[in-house]
Amino acid sequence: MQAIGERINGMFRSIGRAIGGHDKQVIQDCARTQLEAGGDVLDVNVGPAAADEEAAMAWLVETIREVTDAPLCLDSTKPAVIRAGLEVCTGEKIINSTTGVPEKMAEMLPLAAEYSCPIVGLCIDADGVPRDAEGRMEIALSLVAACMEHGIPTDHLYIDAVILPVNALQHVPPEVCRAIGMVSALADPPPKTILGLSNVSQGAAQRELLNRTFLVMALAHGLDAAIVDVTDQELMEAMITAEVLLNRQVYCDDFVSAYLASRR
Amino acid sequence: MQAIGERINGMFRSIGRAIGGHDKQVIQDCARTQLEAGGDVLDVNVGPAAADEEAAMAWLVETIREVTDAPLCLDSTKPAVIRAGLEVCTGEKIINSTTGVPEKMAEMLPLAAEYSCPIVGLCIDADGVPRDAEGRMEIALSLVAACMEHGIPTDHLYIDAVILPVNALQHVPPEVCRAIGMVSALADPPPKTILGLSNVSQGAAQRELLNRTFLVMALAHGLDAAIVDVTDQELMEAMITAEVLLNRQVYCDDFVSAYLASRR
Repeated sequence: MQAIGERINGMFRSIGRAIGGHDKQVIQDCARTQLEAGGDVLDVNVGPAAADEEAAMAWLVETIREVTDAPLCLDSTKPAVIRAGLEVCTGEKIINSTTGVPEKMAEMLPLAAEYSCPIVGLCIDADGVPRDAEGRMEIALSLVAACMEHGIPTDHLYIDAVILPVNALQHVPPEVCRAIGMVSALADPPPKTILGLSNVSQGAAQRELLNRTFLVMALAHGLDAAIVDVTDQELMEAMITAEVLLNRQVYCDDFVSAYLASRR
Repeated sequence: MQAIGERINGMFRSIGRAIGGHDKQVIQDCARTQLEAGGDVLDVNVGPAAADEEAAMAWLVETIREVTDAPLCLDSTKPAVIRAGLEVCTGEKIINSTTGVPEKMAEMLPLAAEYSCPIVGLCIDADGVPRDAEGRMEIALSLVAACMEHGIPTDHLYIDAVILPVNALQHVPPEVCRAIGMVSALADPPPKTILGLSNVSQGAAQRELLNRTFLVMALAHGLDAAIVDVTDQELMEAMITAEVLLNRQVYCDDFVSAYLASRR
């Protein structure tokens, strides 16, 4: 699984302050910490409070690139903010994200085509998030079709089936698992699957227990990537163990350490 | 999920000694401890060392019945030992187990019919454990057919897809997950699914981490029951959390405690 570190997000107070004060050290420390914890990719989100979001995204990307070549997941609902990140981002990047709303796809997919980079497609349309797996797949299929129209390889599309808080919407997690299992039939080569994991436990008690348990469930259904708190050690242990049990990572007696060592 | 406590097994030294010395206290304490930890059912296995296995099974069942009416899972490969348990077991019981070998089914299935109780069917035939999920389903289907011939309702059959140690046979866990997902299509009403969980980590390091991670993966594929160490608190937390995320157990902020309280 690609573990995408969620911590470089202006929503977190220390990161928001660092963006406002152009404090490179905080951002670079956060990048290093997440990579050392086993992150494969770093999500980059300027958050809700940045004064000039485009400038903030460009500054974040340049600041991170001073310390690592790791892939970055440029995270914004605004095409101009994504473009600002793409323009200065050397090396690998992922666009996060478009929805299945036609106007949004028309803005975001050309960026993925122009920069030849993967893009996350959320299973959301004008009516919001569908109730069940089948509704999610209808949107996923329109995302696949739109990618094809824009010349984006279908395996550059990461389908996000959109997990919602279990404390409010308990019917959702099984539907998301089912949806993940259905994505491989959508195209050849199949789209990948991704989740913004922490949303499952938003507002809930015992968040870490819910997060790591749902991650293992989603992995069992074929999940390829997730935006997670990679500094949550028990979460990473659960993920690595699931990878071993899925026969994606070779077993050895010290499989957790071996996995983390392979990332450094 | 039905959590079947694995600890009353003569293989464990303290239990083996208690069977030999007819020490009721040890057995009854072990029964109580497992039920308090959240066990729904108690597995009862005289182990390899009992001098008179039939007498030992009968003594164990009677000893446990002095303190609880919880369902018992009578665990032996020998029909005479199973019968010895069935004869004295008031209340609910499960026969554990038959294989798909015709001679074994011919011995074990009549007991399930006679006592109108569920029976575990292992996906093992004369060639041993099949390599993949499809091989397991072939045996499962012959178990279903044999149950029908003996007048045993198909939902009285618990299919055990047979998990093997991941450190030696790393291709097996994904096949077992796939097999669990296929069982619901075998009959109407569908057979249930069960695992002897701890086998996944036999001889491996980090056993508890492997056990609880694989349990969550199997639950995500629809597992109905597992023979587990119910005194492993992190395992039980993972199981309960998966039940919440599967929408089988109502969410509340204190969902682990609420689940355990509902069992006492």
